[in-house]
Amino acid sequence: MQLKEQLQRAQHDVEAMLNRYFDQPLNTEQTIKDATHYGVLNGGKRLRPYLVYATGRMMGANKADLDVLAAAIECIHSYSLVHDDLPAMDDDDLRRGRPTCHIVYGEAQAILAGDALQTLAFDLIANHQFTVPATQQVKMIASLSKASGIEGMVGGQALDIVSTDQVISVEQLERIHQLKTGALLNCAITLGALCATHCDQHTLQQLNLFGQAIGLAFQVQDDILDVEADTETLGKPQGSDIAANKATYPALLGMAGAKQKAQDLLAQAHQALEAIDYDTNELASLASYIVERKY
Amino acid sequence: MQLKEQLQRAQHDVEAMLNRYFDQPLNTEQTIKDATHYGVLNGGKRLRPYLVYATGRMMGANKADLDVLAAAIECIHSYSLVHDDLPAMDDDDLRRGRPTCHIVYGEAQAILAGDALQTLAFDLIANHQFTVPATQQVKMIASLSKASGIEGMVGGQALDIVSTDQVISVEQLERIHQLKTGALLNCAITLGALCATHCDQHTLQQLNLFGQAIGLAFQVQDDILDVEADTETLGKPQGSDIAANKATYPALLGMAGAKQKAQDLLAQAHQALEAIDYDTNELASLASYIVERKY
Repeated sequence: MQLKEQLQRAQHDVEAMLNRYFDQPLNTEQTIKDATHYGVLNGGKRLRPYLVYATGRMMGANKADLDVLAAAIECIHSYSLVHDDLPAMDDDDLRRGRPTCHIVYGEAQAILAGDALQTLAFDLIANHQFTVPATQQVKMIASLSKASGIEGMVGGQALDIVSTDQVISVEQLERIHQLKTGALLNCAITLGALCATHCDQHTLQQLNLFGQAIGLAFQVQDDILDVEADTETLGKPQGSDIAANKATYPALLGMAGAKQKAQDLLAQAHQALEAIDYDTNELASLASYIVERKY
Repeated sequence: MQLKEQLQRAQHDVEAMLNRYFDQPLNTEQTIKDATHYGVLNGGKRLRPYLVYATGRMMGANKADLDVLAAAIECIHSYSLVHDDLPAMDDDDLRRGRPTCHIVYGEAQAILAGDALQTLAFDLIANHQFTVPATQQVKMIASLSKASGIEGMVGGQALDIVSTDQVISVEQLERIHQLKTGALLNCAITLGALCATHCDQHTLQQLNLFGQAIGLAFQVQDDILDVEADTETLGKPQGSDIAANKATYPALLGMAGAKQKAQDLLAQAHQALEAIDYDTNELASLASYIVERKY
């Protein structure tokens, strides 16, 4: 199966899983149910779920277990988007061409929908009967909370906010991205691995190096696309990072320097995979896709 | 030890636990660390941590395990207060006489601080080595996520928002409170019980009935105090619920009816405890305190 089909398959599977959750009768209020559902069905690429599936598949994990983790990590990612879009944060009216959650449901319900999506991530993992032992299940929750909290995604967003309009170094920009997006992308890979019955320390370490490299490469390429792609392809206004006075790799390294950086990270990612005793072809293709994608 | 001292002890212990967390070096940005710490150290009564401790103590649970759960549930409660106080929600500038989180740190950081506090709850539980098996630890996380998410606290808040300015029945008001505050108060009791090595189904069920009764009683008494107590004692403007056009028990049942309701719930709570094979004196005193408190 080609990477494009595999990405579509992941997208389909994780959305089916999430729809199953929201299609069941829930003891709650209709507006918050709708707002939460709307917040997670955002037309995203579902890259994090894909990383869960691809890593788990490589290591022989159970598909139903992976579905749960794919949905959980996407709930975390989606909640961060719902809150990021709020007027007090990035104040975005559109995401992927659709009105953002607070535009449709109002700010109060959007704040709550984001909150509910975060809770749902932990709810899904804790309420699933995994084929691996409960000790492993606890590790999944530990990994997801660490990657998404104050020392991960939320810390990165906070750092991003205080760094806007500031002159920062490449190292500082890298730290923002490692926390803001890198930690969760890396966690997706860890979660896939933790689903496998055998999950040795060496493989986890190499996957971690791979995850760090593609996490940063993803952001470098995002910055490049923010300059080079047109608004329609991108689904958000072209040049919006620059307009928001956010530091970017092309601004700090020049466009050629940024592209070289992406290539260096790609090489690091492939190198990390070479030391892994599984068939890493799919993850290798994914790394290339991240750097070569046009949207 | 008298109940008052036990409440103070719980307050002290949970705050010491939380301070230990924030006093360690964290890989994050200073503002979000400060805002998160500020958000959780809010001068609250720490009733949920107390319920964790009291129930766990009764059933012979390990103190270090209870500390973690007490801190975790208070993180959830505190995050909900930080988000509730936001301009798009209740728009409160003061909480217990102190400026609210967004007044001190700005809206964006307050949204993120709330988010981080929620994550921290799950982080604390998942990263602690409990004396009970991991299967029990997973149940704690399942219970906390269910009680705080779309079918619990967040659902209740959403229902509260759509019910404001509406004429609602006593049953509808009860549902709001059961979700908004009852679910988490009840969960505190469950978490304490899940820390015990022996935790039978009958005891859990009776504790659940007890929790439902005191959860609702707490809210009825809050509504009574909103009318009867003065602003200084209450730490928030007297009559603020009425001013916000929120339905209250005194408004729906009359003051005498509301006080009778509180007494009926107290009787239910004591009855539920009588069927439990542990020394329930402490929990019984707590139930009385909830209905008799003046602030």
